[in-house]
Amino acid sequence: MSSIEEILREVLPEVIPGEELVRKAKKAEEELRRRLDSALSNYPDIEYRFLGSYARDTWLPESLEIDVFLLFPEHYSFEELERIGIEVGKSVVDSYEMRYAAHPYVHGLVAGVEVDVVPCYRLKSPERIKSAVDRTPFHHEWLKDRIRGKENDVRLLKRFLKAGNLYGAEFKVRGFSGYLCELLVVFYGSFENLVRNATRWRREMVIDVENGKIELKKDQRSLFVVDPVDRKRNVAANLSVDNFARFVERCRLFIENPSPEFFRTASRAVDVDRLREELEGRFVYAVSFERPPIVEDNLYTQLERAERRIRKVLEDNEFQVLRSGHHAGERCYLLFETTAGEISKVKKHYGPKIESYENSMRFLRKNREYERFFEDGRYVTYRRRKLRRAEQVIEHAIATQHESMGKDLSDYIRDGSVHSGEEILSLHELLEFLTEFLGVRE
Amino acid sequence: MSSIEEILREVLPEVIPGEELVRKAKKAEEELRRRLDSALSNYPDIEYRFLGSYARDTWLPESLEIDVFLLFPEHYSFEELERIGIEVGKSVVDSYEMRYAAHPYVHGLVAGVEVDVVPCYRLKSPERIKSAVDRTPFHHEWLKDRIRGKENDVRLLKRFLKAGNLYGAEFKVRGFSGYLCELLVVFYGSFENLVRNATRWRREMVIDVENGKIELKKDQRSLFVVDPVDRKRNVAANLSVDNFARFVERCRLFIENPSPEFFRTASRAVDVDRLREELEGRFVYAVSFERPPIVEDNLYTQLERAERRIRKVLEDNEFQVLRSGHHAGERCYLLFETTAGEISKVKKHYGPKIESYENSMRFLRKNREYERFFEDGRYVTYRRRKLRRAEQVIEHAIATQHESMGKDLSDYIRDGSVHSGEEILSLHELLEFLTEFLGVRE
Ligand SMILES: Nc1ccn([C@@H]2O[C@H](COP(=O)(O)OP(=O)(O)OP(=O)(O)O)[C@@H](O)[C@H]2O)c(=O)n1
Ligand SMILES: Nc1ccn([C@@H]2O[C@H](COP(=O)(O)OP(=O)(O)OP(=O)(O)O)[C@@H](O)[C@H]2O)c(=O)n1
Ligand SMILES: Nc1ccn([C@@H]2O[C@H](COP(=O)(O)OP(=O)(O)OP(=O)(O)O)[C@@H](O)[C@H]2O)c(=O)n1
Ligand SMILES: Nc1ccn([C@@H]2O[C@H](COP(=O)(O)OP(=O)(O)OP(=O)(O)O)[C@@H](O)[C@H]2O)c(=O)n1
Ligand SMILES: [Mg+2]
Ligand SMILES: [Mg+2]
Ligand SMILES: [Mn+2]
Ligand SMILES: [Mn+2]
Ligand SMILES: [Mn+2]
Ligand SMILES: [Mn+2]
Ligand SMILES: [Mn+2]
Ligand SMILES: [Mn+2]
Repeated sequence: MSSIEEILREVLPEVIPGEELVRKAKKAEEELRRRLDSALSNYPDIEYRFLGSYARDTWLPESLEIDVFLLFPEHYSFEELERIGIEVGKSVVDSYEMRYAAHPYVHGLVAGVEVDVVPCYRLKSPERIKSAVDRTPFHHEWLKDRIRGKENDVRLLKRFLKAGNLYGAEFKVRGFSGYLCELLVVFYGSFENLVRNATRWRREMVIDVENGKIELKKDQRSLFVVDPVDRKRNVAANLSVDNFARFVERCRLFIENPSPEFFRTASRAVDVDRLREELEGRFVYAVSFERPPIVEDNLYTQLERAERRIRKVLEDNEFQVLRSGHHAGERCYLLFETTAGEISKVKKHYGPKIESYENSMRFLRKNREYERFFEDGRYVTYRRRKLRRAEQVIEHAIATQHESMGKDLSDYIRDGSVHSGEEILSLHELLEFLTEFLGVRE
Repeated sequence: MSSIEEILREVLPEVIPGEELVRKAKKAEEELRRRLDSALSNYPDIEYRFLGSYARDTWLPESLEIDVFLLFPEHYSFEELERIGIEVGKSVVDSYEMRYAAHPYVHGLVAGVEVDVVPCYRLKSPERIKSAVDRTPFHHEWLKDRIRGKENDVRLLKRFLKAGNLYGAEFKVRGFSGYLCELLVVFYGSFENLVRNATRWRREMVIDVENGKIELKKDQRSLFVVDPVDRKRNVAANLSVDNFARFVERCRLFIENPSPEFFRTASRAVDVDRLREELEGRFVYAVSFERPPIVEDNLYTQLERAERRIRKVLEDNEFQVLRSGHHAGERCYLLFETTAGEISKVKKHYGPKIESYENSMRFLRKNREYERFFEDGRYVTYRRRKLRRAEQVIEHAIATQHESMGKDLSDYIRDGSVHSGEEILSLHELLEFLTEFLGVRE
């Protein structure tokens, strides 16, 4: 077994951008500066700044991307900021697409390098921000000197997270943002020290980066990392509890058995015969539908919503749901596994407690298919169940409740289809996710 | 619709013993007195007394039975009391069988009339009783003058209860004892007044018969009727919550629509085709086994115990139990209905929370059939389920846990058999109970 130092020395060249790539980036940066100087000559009060991982030299070679922010004085209206921001953004890149965060921004290419051009306000203090992007200049100010000398630790951490599918705060991932990575490296001083300490992380922790201390707070849902720039904000707010757990586990496994594999992305092998065998004797259902043309953050929150909704309907119909999930590729998918596939044709229908005279009389006077009885002093009777199979329940949920499944998803889900058992194997792009979903070992 | 008075006038002759029966009883009583005088001539300090419903003239014609108690001075040991009690009991009846309450007593016939000869201690005060039967003389003293003039109200009440299968405090019924009936008639003054008031009964009620008042007590499981002879004792202790509810419902139905049918026992019609149709698409299981030769109170408590046990095993195996029940006829039966008949081949197996380093490492190092995952920060994996069908679970419960199903029942249950669905229709003596159990309406 190699030591941690040896492993880090081995993978370091894989996370540091090579000379050629750095040269390419520099050339693109210079070209971009020239174009910005010219484009902004009509707007002398708008300033540009290089922020994000490129500006701090904490970017990974496989994801070179230059973040440049246009800082507008406060007297500009939102509309002006947006209009001019987009106009300038488009004018400085070779080709572009629109992207959306707090407001629209331009993503494009300059000399073959990816660039984000993001407009924001230039403020005196981060307490007065108008939208989340306005914090970015403050983040950079706070970090830029403190991260110096630790850039490669940030790179190791980002890659370590990427390989575990834990990098990125977007809804698709619900993991660690780049800014969170840098703060953690500042707090713990190095990648290795962070990883050693994270093996003992607890959800009750409040990591106060600015003051270099940790407090425990009972009844806290999950980790809180105080933003040095805005103490009320949790930089780890988008980190899901399960990803928190996966990270802690990953740190433990790495510390106990260090290997370069922790920094390399492996894709899952799919064994269709194994999946077929597994689906036999389990009750698994997939909803598949066309992918709506909306931004990822919206797509994933709506997929989560639809998944929760159908899960709730299954549970209301007394199907115990073992697990549910969602996946988006060319098409979108929702997955459900239940304990049973078909249940009784009757279900219990509860009435009032015996103490309530009026309600009791109303209950027993009603014409019923089944005789009433008591359970712990409360009236009960049976009713015929219309939906006896989990598949029917899912179809029914979609037919009657698609409108509560996310506004952009609704119509797509309504036109989707439900697959059960082996039928799911025909959904090729779902099979890698299905392998994980079923808990099938490689 | 007839008035309540009209109905009571109509049924009264059905609950009052006829002249001929009273003459027969009187003759038996006189014969019994003669025999007791003679049998006790060797024991001048042992006294006999007529207690119970015969002594107070509150018995029903279909259940004439003379209760005679032998009162022993306190210096007799338990063993002497038992030996002499049985000896005297046997000597005064024409034919006998042993019965068992707090201690053994003699049940037999005298001049064609059923007789209970029960030994007990003669005490100064009911606080010093050695066993429950020692209270009976005090019960009689308390009641005998107070019930005078209300005998037929007691008879109406007993018959009203009998017709609803609510009469008797024994475990088979868990209903109203004769003594409880008399106390309630004393408290409310008449059958009609009791029934009117019981329509508003609540489980929080404490009926203080001696002081003629009712109090409400929060967090009380069910009705408490204070024994005037021993204020700590709840005379309604054996009344089940569901029988409490059935009684309240019965009173309401009678008040709202009085009819002589409330005093007449009807047996349930069994429609085998209807039962067959019902069993189709529901998941119903019966355990049947030979009836062990033990007294009823022991049999029913052990049947309840076995039923609870199997129910628990079903639930532990993730079968939701809609209802369970038991029945004893020539043979004994346990009945279970579940929501599903067959469930997934996997079940969830929960591990530690991520915060527990040592346990987490032990959990993930174990060789597993399925990959681990997280649920709200806790480890989970799947395990293969050995028992996928409810029937298998019941068979397994019996095979491995019959020893916890009642000491006298254990061996009989072990040798019993499990029937599912239509097979149950071959258990003829169970079908009336099954009809009720399934909620099938007549
Ligand atoms: N939708 C977005 C994208 C970015 N930012 C801000 O822009 C900076 C750069 O974002 P991003 O490129 O996503 O992250 P980096 O820190 O640059 O990391 P990476 O190496 O992944 O590019 C972040 O500090 C963040 O505050 C933002 O506020 N909203
Ligand atoms: N949990 C309940 C259910 C019912 N009731 C009483 O029983 C009557 C009949 O209830 P139910 O059988 O549920 O029929 P409805 O509510 O009338 O119709 P449904 O439930 O089919 O919509 C109700 O009006 C109410 O007085 C009650 O008090 N508490
Ligand atoms: N196993 C028993 C049976 C009877 N008793 C006492 O004996 C009396 C008579 O009991 P029972 O014959 O069961 O009831 P009755 O009140 O006589 O009513 P019934 O008309 O049903 O005989 C009761 O008051 C009760 O206190 C008892 O203590 N233990
Ligand atoms: N609820 C649980 C279950 C397991 N563990 C940890 O995980 C290890 C493995 O547990 P498990 O998978 O349950 O296997 P065993 O308990 O060893 O065996 P079994 O449950 O099959 O009896 C345990 O030793 C314990 O350290 C835990 O902390 N909490
Ligand atoms: Mg209702
Ligand atoms: Mg265990
Ligand atoms: Mn970036
Ligand atoms: Mn960016
Ligand atoms: Mn691009
Ligand atoms: Mn009696
Ligand atoms: Mn008796
Ligand atoms: Mn008899």
